[in-house]
Amino acid sequence: MSDGIPAGWSMSGVACGIRGSSGEPGRLDLAVWHSDRPASAAGVFTKNLVFAAPVAVCRQRLHGGHGHGFQAVVASSGNANACTGERGLADALEMTGAVEKRLGLSEGTALVANTGVIGRFLPMEVIRPGIDQACQAADRRPQSVENASRAIMTTDTRPKVSRRQMSLSSGETVHILGMAKGAAMIAPDMATMLSFLFTDAPVSPGVLHALLRRSSARTFNCLSIDGHMSTNDTVLLLANGAARPGQELHGPDLEHFAQAVEEVSADLAGAIAGDAEGATKLVYVEVEGMRKESEARQIARAVADSPLVKTAIYGADPNWGRIVSAAGYAGVPFDPSALALDLNGKVLYEKGSPTAFDPGEISRFMRETNPLVFRLTFQEGSQGCRLASCDLTPEYVRLNSDYTT
Amino acid sequence: MSDGIPAGWSMSGVACGIRGSSGEPGRLDLAVWHSDRPASAAGVFTKNLVFAAPVAVCRQRLHGGHGHGFQAVVASSGNANACTGERGLADALEMTGAVEKRLGLSEGTALVANTGVIGRFLPMEVIRPGIDQACQAADRRPQSVENASRAIMTTDTRPKVSRRQMSLSSGETVHILGMAKGAAMIAPDMATMLSFLFTDAPVSPGVLHALLRRSSARTFNCLSIDGHMSTNDTVLLLANGAARPGQELHGPDLEHFAQAVEEVSADLAGAIAGDAEGATKLVYVEVEGMRKESEARQIARAVADSPLVKTAIYGADPNWGRIVSAAGYAGVPFDPSALALDLNGKVLYEKGSPTAFDPGEISRFMRETNPLVFRLTFQEGSQGCRLASCDLTPEYVRLNSDYTT
Repeated sequence: MSDGIPAGWSMSGVACGIRGSSGEPGRLDLAVWHSDRPASAAGVFTKNLVFAAPVAVCRQRLHGGHGHGFQAVVASSGNANACTGERGLADALEMTGAVEKRLGLSEGTALVANTGVIGRFLPMEVIRPGIDQACQAADRRPQSVENASRAIMTTDTRPKVSRRQMSLSSGETVHILGMAKGAAMIAPDMATMLSFLFTDAPVSPGVLHALLRRSSARTFNCLSIDGHMSTNDTVLLLANGAARPGQELHGPDLEHFAQAVEEVSADLAGAIAGDAEGATKLVYVEVEGMRKESEARQIARAVADSPLVKTAIYGADPNWGRIVSAAGYAGVPFDPSALALDLNGKVLYEKGSPTAFDPGEISRFMRETNPLVFRLTFQEGSQGCRLASCDLTPEYVRLNSDYTT
Repeated sequence: MSDGIPAGWSMSGVACGIRGSSGEPGRLDLAVWHSDRPASAAGVFTKNLVFAAPVAVCRQRLHGGHGHGFQAVVASSGNANACTGERGLADALEMTGAVEKRLGLSEGTALVANTGVIGRFLPMEVIRPGIDQACQAADRRPQSVENASRAIMTTDTRPKVSRRQMSLSSGETVHILGMAKGAAMIAPDMATMLSFLFTDAPVSPGVLHALLRRSSARTFNCLSIDGHMSTNDTVLLLANGAARPGQELHGPDLEHFAQAVEEVSADLAGAIAGDAEGATKLVYVEVEGMRKESEARQIARAVADSPLVKTAIYGADPNWGRIVSAAGYAGVPFDPSALALDLNGKVLYEKGSPTAFDPGEISRFMRETNPLVFRLTFQEGSQGCRLASCDLTPEYVRLNSDYTT
């Protein structure tokens, strides 16, 4: 148990050759996670109407977002299997089928995710042997955690892993292991967010789903790199109960577990924002004093997604007018005359007017500080949020202006 | 009448020194338009909750968006008079008051607009003598039309003027003169859209407002440079009836007039998109086959505002996946399997799958063609729209990353 890997779980990451065609032979590109017993599973997915084949398969298997009896997840990078029609769906099902067969599992017990270029068919001729190899290689070595987390990377510069363990009131230890790939700005078409959380906690599917939705709303869904929603975003949480078979978590144990899941999710979301390539700054937009958390998020997102706000931050330009005016078009009613804005505690704007700050001094501060925290304080209620984002740079434009050709 | 200027209208543009502090002494920065008799007026304004003082004054005077008895408009560039609180409101009222006094008009008969940097107080010490000068200079020379249209420019590279004339069934000639300043990408904080249309047609305020709202929805509101909604957007239409005093337009005359207003508006909106600085391409996003025009606009806007779509266009990258996936997150329900996409008639995607186009060939075509027209065809209904936009370039980031400091 001291390896920090949840009991009953094994995994692997292999280089099967999906990336070979993009000039990266030998790069890890396929991962498999395997539980030695049936697990509860919950998922949250992209809200994009144009969603990828693997998302369709997961949604179907987790009808309503959760289910029981799952024993494997397979994921690959380099190709999103999105906008690929019937053939894409067949390929996704072939991937899960191959994993189930190779691991001796019942049909329908594997889940699947892909990330990469949209609109190209999966190279099944390399994926088939890749799945064989990955299933054979799956074990509990630290190197396998590293390999699996690297195999889902696209433009990420580093793997993203987070773990927690907690003691149950009955004495057993529960482990949570999470890994994610990020929304690196360099090529956000590939920058689908994939996050997989595995645990040996005993939790029923419905409860698992409720707590995953709640923690994702505050972490993975409070993250905006460029406002373009992917076709493949997937967060999966699987709990096989191996830490204490036959007796579900409840009461304080369940609360602690939910807290630990949210902490792992926050770690991974922060790692994604901190690894946004092309960006020079990690930016938090905090909103306070709103009626609802959802309204706070809507405002934070309008501010974080404005190219004018993002470019001003890149240029260390304390252009608070862009921030305040972005809040104004977010579609959420508020009293503008009661609005205040501060940057890392320095008040730039209050009661509908700018304060007498020294632009040169604030600009120097912006240049030297990372992360930057812009806080908008309203007087509408007591709800708020914290959204992770980044700046918009010439490097982002350069990297994204020539991607598929 | 052969000068193309509506009867009863005179105008001027002067350099009063607002731009002096930004290193542009002598640049035209204040315009006045004057009608020798009371006119009907209608306005449409920014929907931003954080709106500028001049917008507040116009809204109040045109309660509900229209009113009668107006005789002047004053507009200036270089300072938006936005986020300036009570003092900004007093300054805006002082501007209208000075115009009314200088032209011998009743109180409340002038309208006002500003464009420029947010959050700085107007330099009233130069604006006061500027208004005197502009009121004195107002006349009907072609040079005055040129001067007025130049005085409202900020980062526009050229003035934007459009005219139409039409004959009424009773024989008189009606003139429409429109001028606008654009959303140049170089510094869209200053890129408030201001459009002023003047006519000698006899039209009541309510009718004028209805037709202005309709034509603006299809022209000025079908325009997106970077998705950041200004605090100052203003479209005004004033009709003094001098072409045929005492007898309002109706029937076919009114229909022709509405058509001419829409044509002038479309000219000006196209000129704004075509002059988006930093951009290398004029881009039209057309949506067809939707249930409602508003839904079509919502989809077109999501596509046009995606930084991934904009950067791909800059790079001549036929990355249709970005366009299709942006449509998917617009918040409008549709059947993705029935969606088709073409670029200037070349089909890139249909029935949920990409077509077998040659990326290199399409990329060459994109490099050589301007404007680019991306058409999304849905199977939901018979409504559509055409939205004017542009690409996102490193130059845009450079120009916008150091603006106020």
